Formats: sequence, C-alpha cells, structure tokens
Amino acid sequence: MPPEPGVRSIARALYRTVSNLPIISPHGHTDPRWYALDEPFPDPAQLLIVPDHYIFRMLFSQGIALEDLGVRRLDGAETETDGRRIWQLFAENYHLFRGTPTRLWMDYVLSSLFHIEEPLNAETADSSYDRIAEKLRQPEYRPRALFKRFNIEAIATTEGALDDLRWHRMIRESGWDGRVVTAYRPDAVVDPDFEGFSANLDQLGEITGEDTGTWAGYLAAHRKRRDYFKSFGATSSDHGHATADTANLSAAEAAALFDRIRSGRGDAGDHRQFRAQMLTEMAKMSLDDGLVLQIHPGSWRNHSPSMLSRHGRDMGFDIPTRTDYVGALKPLLDAVGLERDLTVVVFTLDETSYARELAPLAGVYPALRLGPAWWFHDSPEGMRRFREMTTETAGFYNTVGFNDDTRAFPSIPARHDIARRVDCAFLARLVAEHRLREEEAFDLARELAYTLAKKAYRL
Amino acid sequence: MPPEPGVRSIARALYRTVSNLPIISPHGHTDPRWYALDEPFPDPAQLLIVPDHYIFRMLFSQGIALEDLGVRRLDGAETETDGRRIWQLFAENYHLFRGTPTRLWMDYVLSSLFHIEEPLNAETADSSYDRIAEKLRQPEYRPRALFKRFNIEAIATTEGALDDLRWHRMIRESGWDGRVVTAYRPDAVVDPDFEGFSANLDQLGEITGEDTGTWAGYLAAHRKRRDYFKSFGATSSDHGHATADTANLSAAEAAALFDRIRSGRGDAGDHRQFRAQMLTEMAKMSLDDGLVLQIHPGSWRNHSPSMLSRHGRDMGFDIPTRTDYVGALKPLLDAVGLERDLTVVVFTLDETSYARELAPLAGVYPALRLGPAWWFHDSPEGMRRFREMTTETAGFYNTVGFNDDTRAFPSIPARHDIARRVDCAFLARLVAEHRLREEEAFDLARELAYTLAKKAYRL
Amino acid sequence: MPPEPGVRSIARALYRTVSNLPIISPHGHTDPRWYALDEPFPDPAQLLIVPDHYIFRMLFSQGIALEDLGVRRLDGAETETDGRRIWQLFAENYHLFRGTPTRLWMDYVLSSLFHIEEPLNAETADSSYDRIAEKLRQPEYRPRALFKRFNIEAIATTEGALDDLRWHRMIRESGWDGRVVTAYRPDAVVDPDFEGFSANLDQLGEITGEDTGTWAGYLAAHRKRRDYFKSFGATSSDHGHATADTANLSAAEAAALFDRIRSGRGDAGDHRQFRAQMLTEMAKMSLDDGLVLQIHPGSWRNHSPSMLSRHGRDMGFDIPTRTDYVGALKPLLDAVGLERDLTVVVFTLDETSYARELAPLAGVYPALRLGPAWWFHDSPEGMRRFREMTTETAGFYNTVGFNDDTRAFPSIPARHDIARRVDCAFLARLVAEHRLREEEAFDLARELAYTLAKKAYRL
Repeated sequence: MPPEPGVRSIARALYRTVSNLPIISPHGHTDPRWYALDEPFPDPAQLLIVPDHYIFRMLFSQGIALEDLGVRRLDGAETETDGRRIWQLFAENYHLFRGTPTRLWMDYVLSSLFHIEEPLNAETADSSYDRIAEKLRQPEYRPRALFKRFNIEAIATTEGALDDLRWHRMIRESGWDGRVVTAYRPDAVVDPDFEGFSANLDQLGEITGEDTGTWAGYLAAHRKRRDYFKSFGATSSDHGHATADTANLSAAEAAALFDRIRSGRGDAGDHRQFRAQMLTEMAKMSLDDGLVLQIHPGSWRNHSPSMLSRHGRDMGFDIPTRTDYVGALKPLLDAVGLERDLTVVVFTLDETSYARELAPLAGVYPALRLGPAWWFHDSPEGMRRFREMTTETAGFYNTVGFNDDTRAFPSIPARHDIARRVDCAFLARLVAEHRLREEEAFDLARELAYTLAKKAYRL
Repeated sequence: MPPEPGVRSIARALYRTVSNLPIISPHGHTDPRWYALDEPFPDPAQLLIVPDHYIFRMLFSQGIALEDLGVRRLDGAETETDGRRIWQLFAENYHLFRGTPTRLWMDYVLSSLFHIEEPLNAETADSSYDRIAEKLRQPEYRPRALFKRFNIEAIATTEGALDDLRWHRMIRESGWDGRVVTAYRPDAVVDPDFEGFSANLDQLGEITGEDTGTWAGYLAAHRKRRDYFKSFGATSSDHGHATADTANLSAAEAAALFDRIRSGRGDAGDHRQFRAQMLTEMAKMSLDDGLVLQIHPGSWRNHSPSMLSRHGRDMGFDIPTRTDYVGALKPLLDAVGLERDLTVVVFTLDETSYARELAPLAGVYPALRLGPAWWFHDSPEGMRRFREMTTETAGFYNTVGFNDDTRAFPSIPARHDIARRVDCAFLARLVAEHRLREEEAFDLARELAYTLAKKAYRL
Repeated sequence: MPPEPGVRSIARALYRTVSNLPIISPHGHTDPRWYALDEPFPDPAQLLIVPDHYIFRMLFSQGIALEDLGVRRLDGAETETDGRRIWQLFAENYHLFRGTPTRLWMDYVLSSLFHIEEPLNAETADSSYDRIAEKLRQPEYRPRALFKRFNIEAIATTEGALDDLRWHRMIRESGWDGRVVTAYRPDAVVDPDFEGFSANLDQLGEITGEDTGTWAGYLAAHRKRRDYFKSFGATSSDHGHATADTANLSAAEAAALFDRIRSGRGDAGDHRQFRAQMLTEMAKMSLDDGLVLQIHPGSWRNHSPSMLSRHGRDMGFDIPTRTDYVGALKPLLDAVGLERDLTVVVFTLDETSYARELAPLAGVYPALRLGPAWWFHDSPEGMRRFREMTTETAGFYNTVGFNDDTRAFPSIPARHDIARRVDCAFLARLVAEHRLREEEAFDLARELAYTLAKKAYRL
C-alpha cells in the first residue's frame, strides 16, 4: 500500500472491495493429486521449502548446499530428510529474503494460515515448526478444505500432452465441487530437443490412435488430446519455448519439416523452426476449439550443467534472456493475429519489451493479450513496472488479470492478495493524479482482480 | 500533478508560471490547408476520431472493425460515414482508454474546448456530439481562431520534398499573422524502398532543374529544395528511418552507391547504406543552411500486411523495435558530431536507450540533442521516465522541450499542458528532495515549457 | 530524502545511524601519490574540474572547448592554465548541471568541505575560488588530513600490472596509519588490443623473472604480480573489458591461443577470445589467492576518434552499449560459478540487465555478487533503479555496498553520503509499505553503508 495518506486511503477503499473476491487461478502448477486424494500435507519443510525454487535458489546463492535443504540428488546420494532441521536452516537465513516477494508470501502464509505472528528466525524456528506441523494434521488443513478456505473459484493445473489426467478424473468422479481444470502443455511432443521426443511421439500415437509418423496424423493426435483435455475442463494450452519465434510454413513445407524431424535428420535450425511452426499450428487449433494459447518464452533453462546433472531440471538455474517479440510473433500474427475469437496470451521475462513491443502489439492486434508480470517479476516492484509500462499503450483491457503460476499451494492467497494490493495502489495513484475518476477505479479494481482473468481464460 | 501535498504545492506553483506560456510546436503533422483555407472543421467524428490512430488502434485491438469507425478501405468498399454513429461507437467503448493518454487528451478537449463536463459514455454520446457539432459551426472554432485561442506562437507542419507548399504560400499571401512553418521530410526521395522512388527522383530533378541522374545533381537538388522550404519558414528537416544507421562514405564511394541505386542495381544492403549515408549528407547540408536535423528511427512500419493492403499506411500497425544508437550514429558523429553550430535531435521508441546510449551521447557531443518522449511514450509515465533516465547524464539543457508530433489539432493544447504538468512534477520532486533550489526550478519550468524548444529549433 | 513526511521520517532515522559510519571505498581511482607525499593540493580548478570527466563532458556538450577548461592536448598546443579563469567558466555554466549528480557532489564539497553556502554562479566565482584556494594552503586540507577527516577506514586505488607500487611502498614506509591498498588491473597485459601489448608482456617477464613467451610462464607471471599486489594490501583485481565475454578453453587450446597472440598472428576473434579466457584464468587464480574479481564491462571507449587524437583517453567519450551477461558469463560460471569461496563482482552500464540477467544470476550462483550502480548510474535515480530492479530477485545480501569509483578525492564523502541517503530512502519505503520491519531496516542500512562492502571485498 502506498505511503502517501491520500493515495493510501483511496487504495484501501479500492482494496476493501476486492480483497474478498474469489480467486481465479487460470495458470499454475499445483498438483492435481492433492485435490484428488485430499490427504494431509506432509511436514512444514516438505510443504513450504523443498518444492519452492525461489527459496532454495536464494539460500544456494549464499553458500547453502541444496542437499542440506532436502533437495534430492539424481545420483541418489543422501540429502537432509529431517524437516525440522531444514526448517531451522531456512529460519536462520530468513533475513536473506528481506526485500523479496518470498518474504512477503511466507509472512502472509505464516500469519494468515498458521496464525504465527512472531518474526521467523533461528530462535522461533522450533515453535513455528511445531505450530505448522500441528495444523497440518487437522482436517481444516487438507487440500480441499484449504481450497474452500482460500475461496478459489477455479484453478488450472498444467499437464503434459501424454498425461492420462487420472487425478482430474478422480476429482471429477469424487463428486467434489471444487473447480480444478487442466491445461494442455505439449512441450514434450512439440520440442524436438525435449528428452525422449521420438518416444514421446510414439506414445502420442498410441494414446490417440493416430499415425504420428505423418504430419497429418501428428496434428490429428494433438487435436484429439486437446479435446481430451477440454473434457477435463481445460480452457488453455501453454508453451514454454526458449524464444517467442513463430513460423507460418505452407502445409507442404511443414510436412517436409516434420518428416526431417521425425526421422531424426533435422538439424538445430529445423528444431527451432519446428517449435516456431507449432506455435502457429496451436493457434490455428485454438481458433477451432477455443483454447486460449499461452506463450511463456525467454528463459535459458538449466543454465548450470553441473547443477542439472546433480539435481535435475527446475532447480532455480533458469535465467531470463533478451527476447524479441515484434519479429518473432509476426508469422503467427500474420496468420491469425486479426482474429477476434482467438486469445493468445503472451508473457515475458524481459521487461524491456513491455513498453517497446508487447504493449504496442497487444494494443492493436485483436488476438493478442498481455499476460501479467511473470516469475522474477511477480513481485510488488515488478507488477508496478508492468502497469506503468503497459497501461498507457495497451490499456487495462488488453491484459488478463493475475496468474499465480505457482506450485506452492499455500502461497496462492498471498500472491493474489499482493497483486490486488499493487493494482489498487496503481489505480489509486491514477485517481490521485486526476488521470482516472474514482468510480472507474472501483470498476477496474474488480476487473483486474477477478473479471478479466475469468473472461480472458473463459473460466 | 503529484499526490504528496508538499510536492504538489511546489508543482502547482511552478505550473502556474508556465500554463499560459505560448505554444511552440516545432514538430507536428497538422494540415497546412486548414490554416490556408480557414474552413470550418467537419463533423465531430471526422475531427476527433477518424484521423487519430491512437483511437482506432485501441478500438480495433478489442474487436471493433475499422470500417465501423469510418476508416477508408483501399478497395473502396463502404465504410461508416455517419459521424454520429462513429461517435456513438467510440463513446460506448470509451472505458477502453482508461489509463491511456488518449483519455487525458480527449477529456481535456471536451472540457476546455467544448465545455462538456459530463463523462463520455453511451448515454452521453448524443448530447456531446450535438454540442461539438454546434460549436464547429461557429466562427470561433475555425482553424485560425483556434490557432489564436490555443496561443500558438509557432507551429511546424511536415511536407515531403516534392510538395509545392501551396498551402504555405496561400497562408503567407493571405496576410494572416499566424506563424506556420514547414519542415523538410525527404523520405520519398531518400529511401530507395519508398513507393515510386525512381519516379520521385525524376520529379525532384524536374522541380529543381538539377540532374538527379548524378550524385552531384541529386545533392544539389536537395540543397535547392531545402532552400525552398526555408523560404517558407522551415527550420528543420525530419527523417523517419527504420534504424538510426548512418554512414560516412567518401565522395567517390557515395557517388558509386548512388549510381547503383539510381540504375536499380542496388541490393538491400545498398539501400540500407544509402539511407545511412543520406543522414550524414543531410547533417552536412545542415551545417551550411542551419536546418535542425531530426532523426525519428525505430518503428517497424505496417507490421500487418493484411491491414496494409486493406487500409494502407499509418493505421496503428507501426511497432517499435530495439534500436541501437552508439554504433549507428558513429559515422555521422565522426563526421560532424563535434560541430557547435549543428543541431541533430534524436528521438527513440526504445526507452532502454535513454540512460544507456542517448543521454551519454547527448551529454558529450555538442551537435547532439535529445528529442522528448515520443509517440508511444508521449504520456505521463513515458515523459516521467524520459526525465528520470536522461537528466542525470545529459542534464536538461541537452534536451529540446516538447514536441506534440500530432495531426490532431484540437489536442495540441492538451498535449502541451500535460507535458508542462509532468515536467513541473519532476522539478517539484527534485526541489522536495533538495536536489534543486526552488528558484532554479522556476527557471527550468520555463525552459522546458517554452525556451528550449524555441532555441533548439531556432524558431 | 523522500518527500512524503512519513517515509521521510523513517528515512531520516535510518540515515542518522549510518551517516557517520566510516567509509569503505573498495574500488576507486585516487592517486596513491597524494597519500604518499601528502603535499597540498594545487589550485581549485586543478583539484575540482580539470580531472573530472563528468564536468568537462557536460561543458563540452554545450559548446565549451576542452582547451578552455585546461584539459591538455596531445599535440602540446596551449590550453588554459589560469585556475581562476577555468573556475569562472565553470561557475558561469554551473546551471548546466542542474539535475545531475555532479551538482549534488559539488554543492556538498563546497558546503561541507569549504563552508561555501552561496550558490555557485558567475557572480560568486571569484569569492569561492579565493576561499577554496585559501583552504587548500592549510595543513588540514592536505591529503592525509582529509583522509582522516573523511573518516575513511580503507580505500583501494587501482594500479596496472606493471606498476612498481612505489607510492604504496612509500605510504607503508612512512608509518602513516591510513589504510590505502592497491588493486590489480592487468588490462595492459591481458588485452591484445592494448597499446604496446607485446612490449608490456616483455616487461611483465622482466619484472617477474618468468618467461612470458609461454602460456605457463605468462600465467606464472600473473600469479607473482598478484602476490606482489597482495603484499600491498590488494584484495581485488579489476577488469575493464568491452564485453562480459568469458571462455573456458582447455589448457592446450589456451596455450595455442596464447602462442598465436604472442607471435602477433592472432586475429580479432583470437583477441576477443583471449580476453574472455583471461577472465576465467583470473577467476581461477582468485580461487587460490582470494582476490575478489571485478568485471566492469560494457563501455565503448573513446567513441570519438578526433577527440582521442586531440586529447587522449578518458575524455568523457566512453559510451555504454548493450551488454549480455547470461551467455557471456556462462563459461566462467560453468568453471567456477558454484564455488563458495570465490567472489566475482559484476558491474553493468546496461540497466536492462539488472532485473533480467544480473539479479537472476547473482540470486543463484554462489560466486557471483552485484556491484552497485556504476558510472552513469551512480546517481540518485540510478541507485534507486538499481535497488528497485535487483532486490526482489537477488535480495540485499548478493550486493556489495557502495563503490565511489572516483579519482575526485574531495567528492568521496559526498558520493558515499548520497548512496547512504538513497539506500535509506529505499528501505524507508519498504518499511512504509509494510514490506520490511523497522528493526530490519536499521540492520540493513548499516549493511548497505558499511558491512557488505567490507565483507565482500575482504577489507
């Protein structure tokens, strides 16, 4: 909340009207198994630290071994399993997170979920651990109870194209009324550089009964999987390419490219072009089946080969890179960018593209919408910069509300709450500077907190 | 105006001293025909919506067809001609502009020019349309009357090198005392990729009596046209290249390049180099004739080929791209960058160049000045970022005041007013933070609002 | 100090606890001869203007000849030598520095060091000149007295690899207790494009008794020089490459590369790769000898060839360029980035890398730390942006406090003072926005002002 009393009072008034709105979480990575089985969460460290790469990357950067934080090693070597010791180590180093969003999220979780108000540090580590562990044994802290308590109206998980969606099936068959939908994430069958790509395509063929040895069969297999995902509520697909490159080859060229890739004769340029082409293919399928297409580009994955071989993927070593959109998206936009019934949501890790490229593109192409500040930028300063650099060109209505994008289930309300506060602060400043009327700000606060996400993601 | 009461009171005091200063508009695109003929403006939609790409690009991005906004089609297909219906459609969707400068400009125009204070929306569309239409029929709303009412001391229009400047002649011959000058925009005879380039050069030869089949004749023709433009008050030339690339070839190399281009044998690299060379040639001519050289680079023009073929150029599909200056301008700066009598004003659509490249360059080369925040950045946040990112390295005196850069005549006072407010707010913050003495801020407020533009553009 | 009263009062409280802390200046360019000889400084202009490229670049950009500011010419042509006339010219144009850090530093120096409170301008030029000149003749204004008065706990100078460190020896032998250490800056024997590179390597061999005709001997010579520098207190090395490129060749490849370079057969690519390789070699040596490795990349040195030939290097014509870190540093990070005992401090002139590249890298690699806002960004807005764009991802503890990086000795307290104020203002905002507890802010204020620099640089 902004410190200037006048602005703060407007911001607070706005915030009061949105703080209790249901959560729409259209893009995230929680585990559907939680909602399916509704088992108690394990110990505090397993819930709050071990799966959170924001936490262990910071600790690692200051010389703490991942092994001591319970992060598994690929070679099976022993790592810490005692949750209390992991929690203790985290608490001792909690000062490292000062000024980071992790700190805000964690304080929020400790306070609002576990009613722990004393600062976390070496001295309070034990008592907070006990308190959390005790709560996790209570039925009100099981996944479905928390889902209701968090006031989640709808949440999307993310599953690979080959996933059988068994947990989603179990959720549905259980009769539970929480709305958990899947999202189609086909990287493993779209990116020729993905581990096991060829076998993945074989498996895709088996699952769908289509001949994934041919371009036509491969596309048909995607269509079937998308339909299958839709039958479990999916309203979107998601694509995590290294760049935003797209292509728009003729059908013959695309088929020839596919043949080279499928037979293993494709070179690095072919691989790049295939990924690029598939974004456009997915967009075309979206025109038919209505799935929202999400592009999440710009991360150099697994930057440290030592860490990749020691601990595997997603260990905090994904680093943003300079990302072009104006040239990269052009083939896709030339093909389908003027379609009013298509929604392509573009995210970025390169904030220089906000004002220069993404806002101008989303501010004119009907198919394009701006995803919220993402990943390293999902933070008060990051979200503020997003609004300051996109609003004047793209307005608010070419944005799509907030994505928590997290697998850290307990932090979901914290993340939405912070996003709502930051947006209300931004709106309050516009009101205080006479750039917006107060009643419009109230409208917009609700749009940004709730309606835009629901509308854009068709939830 | 900044919300903190202390800063606001300083800002207001500063603003009071500049709000009524005459307008210097050294770079813009109003139609000289208006001032020549002094006819009433047509209906409200034709005046305020149809020519404004800020407006129709936003509406288009949200699914509204340009045809419904009265934007003409190249194939001659029918588009909406009923001003009232266009206005109604705009008013219904006016909420899309929340947070954008268009909203600020339009509110200012409605309020201060047409005395309409009620919010524009579907319900008020008709009454506001009637009010505006009624005003436009009054003599006080004719172009020359508005020019005086807007307190414009001098305004520059922009004409192509082949223009006969007939409207400027008519203005002069009318005896009217409004100062309307032209500016030399030779893209059509400088850019080999321009439509009809070869024929344009033929015509340039005819107009000037020079042999534009030779490099020497071609340069002489430019000199003659520049003189002709100067005789109609021009104090500047303007160049809208895709990049800021410059070159400094020897006379022999340049002549050989020209021969390849003129005979149609030039390749894409030649075309690029020719554009680059011509910026340096223009700078050298500026040394002789005193015209201020303006470089407006970095826009990917007509990004959507479908829209280009349907509606033509300048339909909101110009998208900024990453732009280099440090390497690109070096040949020109090596040639003439140390000249104290030359003024080269550089603009950018890539804000990352402000602090990294443009402020350091303008902060040392005597010939270089920074143009104000431009186009997508001509907005409160954009102008604030410009000051925050350039002032500490380039100071205020290597900047050139404000350019409205618009063809939307009624919005000119609004644009200058917002620029004055933003600059006063920035100065007020410096005062409040004890980085500037108050009396200096009053000096600077006047410089930024009036004097710097007048001096830099020699108006 | 922030203008909002609530934030300001927190900021002031924080600032009061750090304003008198000793100065740790781990990276700078003051002349060790001053501390060795302890002679009076020459006249005001020679002390405050002639050596300060921030000052003469701004004056030059507005048309003032460097000759008139007393800047020497390489051709020996006469330049102004009358300090009073130089000071007068500066004072007349002091308004050009409004809004720049130079203005803040100079006002601070005039006020706190020379007790001059009246604004500097044409009228006050003479009296202020007299006052400063008078003070400089007093013993309290000699270098060692000022060192104590400035409360400098430790300061690093920078010497080339071939320097005999005679002034450092004299300081030590004098028995004076001021802590002045050197830093190892081997550009002249690491960069094949450096003037006299081959002769420099010969000299390096002579000094060390190693055979710098071989790769092994060359590396051994570096190790000896580093040891020698360490014996004069050095705790760091410093590298001013044009890019952040690093390489990690095998020993055989590196030796072959060295042979090509040493024999003059290396091409431009070899030169680039050699510089890149040497950063990694230096990092490996740092693992052994504990020197902190500083990388200062991204400046296009001597952008104007005319000015280089007229006045030589470092005349304000160094311009930042776009700089990549994610790919560039990877070879070095692959080699030693996970080492906990190594400290590599990376600086940038390209602020777009703060949030996108540098904070994510420093926020995970244990060996990496972020240098403070540097050079063009060593200013209130620049330092604020640094905190806003790095803290949320890298936290505070992956940064290393402040570097004044200056040869302008009298401005050192001013620079540290401004950095302390800006950091306190940033912390105060976090407190006011409830993103940090007040007692944590007090901790952090001290860390940022004093402890982090001392720890990171092992001083």
